[in-house]
Amino acid sequence: MAPHQPTTPQSATKSSSPSSEQPIALTLGVLGVGGIGKEFLFQLTESHVLEGKIAIAFIANSRKEIRFKTPFVPSEHNRELLETLFDGTNDLAIWAKNLYEVLHVELDIVTCSSLLERQRIVLDDVSPSLSDDSNNQDISDALTKESLGAGNTITTKPWKKGRYCIVDMTSSDEIAELYHVFLALGVHIVTPNKKCNSGPTARDQKCRGLSSMSWSTASWFYEATIGAGLPIISTLRNLTSSGDEVYQIKGVFSGTMSYLFNTFDGSTPFSEVVKTAKKLGYTEPDAREDLNGQDVARKVVIAARESGWLDASIEKTSIESLVPEELRACSSEEFDDKFGKLYDTVIAQKFADAKKRGNVLRFCGSADLRTKELKVELMEFPMSHAFANLQGSQNVVEIESKRYNPTDSCCLTISGPGAGAAVTAGGVLGDVAKLVARLGDVEVLV
Amino acid sequence: MAPHQPTTPQSATKSSSPSSEQPIALTLGVLGVGGIGKEFLFQLTESHVLEGKIAIAFIANSRKEIRFKTPFVPSEHNRELLETLFDGTNDLAIWAKNLYEVLHVELDIVTCSSLLERQRIVLDDVSPSLSDDSNNQDISDALTKESLGAGNTITTKPWKKGRYCIVDMTSSDEIAELYHVFLALGVHIVTPNKKCNSGPTARDQKCRGLSSMSWSTASWFYEATIGAGLPIISTLRNLTSSGDEVYQIKGVFSGTMSYLFNTFDGSTPFSEVVKTAKKLGYTEPDAREDLNGQDVARKVVIAARESGWLDASIEKTSIESLVPEELRACSSEEFDDKFGKLYDTVIAQKFADAKKRGNVLRFCGSADLRTKELKVELMEFPMSHAFANLQGSQNVVEIESKRYNPTDSCCLTISGPGAGAAVTAGGVLGDVAKLVARLGDVEVLV
Repeated sequence: MAPHQPTTPQSATKSSSPSSEQPIALTLGVLGVGGIGKEFLFQLTESHVLEGKIAIAFIANSRKEIRFKTPFVPSEHNRELLETLFDGTNDLAIWAKNLYEVLHVELDIVTCSSLLERQRIVLDDVSPSLSDDSNNQDISDALTKESLGAGNTITTKPWKKGRYCIVDMTSSDEIAELYHVFLALGVHIVTPNKKCNSGPTARDQKCRGLSSMSWSTASWFYEATIGAGLPIISTLRNLTSSGDEVYQIKGVFSGTMSYLFNTFDGSTPFSEVVKTAKKLGYTEPDAREDLNGQDVARKVVIAARESGWLDASIEKTSIESLVPEELRACSSEEFDDKFGKLYDTVIAQKFADAKKRGNVLRFCGSADLRTKELKVELMEFPMSHAFANLQGSQNVVEIESKRYNPTDSCCLTISGPGAGAAVTAGGVLGDVAKLVARLGDVEVLV
Repeated sequence: MAPHQPTTPQSATKSSSPSSEQPIALTLGVLGVGGIGKEFLFQLTESHVLEGKIAIAFIANSRKEIRFKTPFVPSEHNRELLETLFDGTNDLAIWAKNLYEVLHVELDIVTCSSLLERQRIVLDDVSPSLSDDSNNQDISDALTKESLGAGNTITTKPWKKGRYCIVDMTSSDEIAELYHVFLALGVHIVTPNKKCNSGPTARDQKCRGLSSMSWSTASWFYEATIGAGLPIISTLRNLTSSGDEVYQIKGVFSGTMSYLFNTFDGSTPFSEVVKTAKKLGYTEPDAREDLNGQDVARKVVIAARESGWLDASIEKTSIESLVPEELRACSSEEFDDKFGKLYDTVIAQKFADAKKRGNVLRFCGSADLRTKELKVELMEFPMSHAFANLQGSQNVVEIESKRYNPTDSCCLTISGPGAGAAVTAGGVLGDVAKLVARLGDVEVLV
């Protein structure tokens, strides 16, 4: 489907001042342009704080890549124009063609054969504009030899560290596998992708080391991996960095599961509620990916690691899956067909039992850092509890710590929409803004 | 009263490595050593992230100042020792004497004649260790002439920018008056003091400009001015910097007022609840300072400014004071005596009326950025509302924005203890940790 006729270039440009007047603080490579990736690009047009400070070097998905010869400064264009260009197509090639015609942004369209190949292009692409800075030569050399193996070459030109950032909007484990390469090269990473910070501990800790030590040149921000734009990661980081001790994190971490249990009132079979949610686009195409608790487990692991329990892992998490044993390996269609028969009475009974006790059911995740327990389970809460009073697909996270201790008064609680393109992209953009704020100091403080 | 016998120097030292091995990232001057100031010093001993990175150049209150010839590194000592030294005295001179005897920290005890005089000492004190950096000479010169007047001299030695920070733990307007001097000199400010960011707009904007522009060399952090350690300022800043548009902020911003209305159930006269709260230390010595709504108004103004409404002010705020007209000018004793007679039936009636409608009373502040309304008032909420289910002295803040829109799903809500020495000092220390994280990049990114 062809995109709509875009508006004219004249009306598209918000500001009359050319981008060359402003120094670009950060050049981004955006990986993944699904709903959240597009929304991220749109939101970049609207941030006054970031206006003129961000340029896009390339945008890629798993099939195509657009490289911009002229750096693309999103804030110089308006959201409506970008929306028009993207409208009705997820095809980067068509979008790029329109972008070129309307904005006169010079670009290349490259079909990448592999992620590493694309990685090579990324590095090539940003290096021509670099000034001399050879401090990182050793790291680059080491990476070429050790991490990439003899078969893969990687540009070892010197880098101007701290000015490039990969925004990983995919949920790809293969991209997560490259994080340590980016970080070691001084390329920042901002991402809502949970694969690295909930994945293998060795890989996570390598990236943590490369991004958080005093000698680190690159930052790794991932606020949007829990609760989309809700300030959960930054709050945990703030508590631990200021010497507080996190005892427990407990929450409704999944927008989908929140919706299901906020909606299910025993009057309609549970499987019908799941079907409605699926129709509304609230569940994954295969609803088992929500019901099996894996997504919640990932978030619990992330929260635990962020609180200082570095070897927390999904393997150590006790997970109550709502997918009956018999339906775990079958096709998605067979699951849809049989789920109600196998599970509706089970869950109706649980609901009725909880109701008898004046309680409601919520699908929760928790990390107890004192007893070293990671759990994902269906729990009961009294009506007066914050978790009982959720609406829609709201997330809620309760942090108990040395300072935020319920015996004194109460926990620190954060709630709000924890899913959706606007708030997730907003969370990612918030991280980019923090990065720019940090970098802003650099030029002056040198 | 003399402090307890402190523990021996040997047991006091946590780490065997001398401080000289670690580079100090930030040197602090601490103003005000009341409950929060002391707790801040104690917490500094416990942060692993900040371990060995922070040194204290001086500690001062309105009467005395301790200057450390040997920079005092709190994380090298344990909390218990510092507590023992401070125990039973608010007298800096006694504390300093014990500190010298136990830790062998060399120090001077200076009695300052005025704040500006102290300010001069601050600058002298940190300058000997400075390397050459004359970029800021112009600003210093300008300040000497313009801001301070001919009668007051200020050191104009070149500064190593970005390495000094004033932690203002006072609630002094005179100190707030000096913020622009500190900031212009490249000295960061971290504070829970509300006087500047809720005070005169011209002064606030001068400090905002000096701390937030791309050319700024100093940061001004004040997370703890709203909700103590709750992440409210940082969340608002994150939303606006990433291009979200804040529509409304509404909350129970005062721990004292929260306690009063969470406790008042109509069975005991309201004035009795106030007296109990006063006995528990929950109110100011003169409870009118809580009941008159000024504290809430300050927080509403801070939240509004942080959301981009820069000329929000207390003067523009409609404030419902719970102090009867007749008792506003009398003595504190006369107020205590007459408050019940004049107000108990009024509030009992309001409570009964709300109850009839199934509602409860809460003392709220709100800033509506669309209608440009700032309000502090007693409001009614249904039992299902988050504001109705508060405990103790809990604060709650609800942010409505373009992204966090209740018509879609719901607001972003943050709640938890919003007062108390531990969480307030934690909020201040969180800001210091953020500053160190920013500065951490600098050395490597040069």
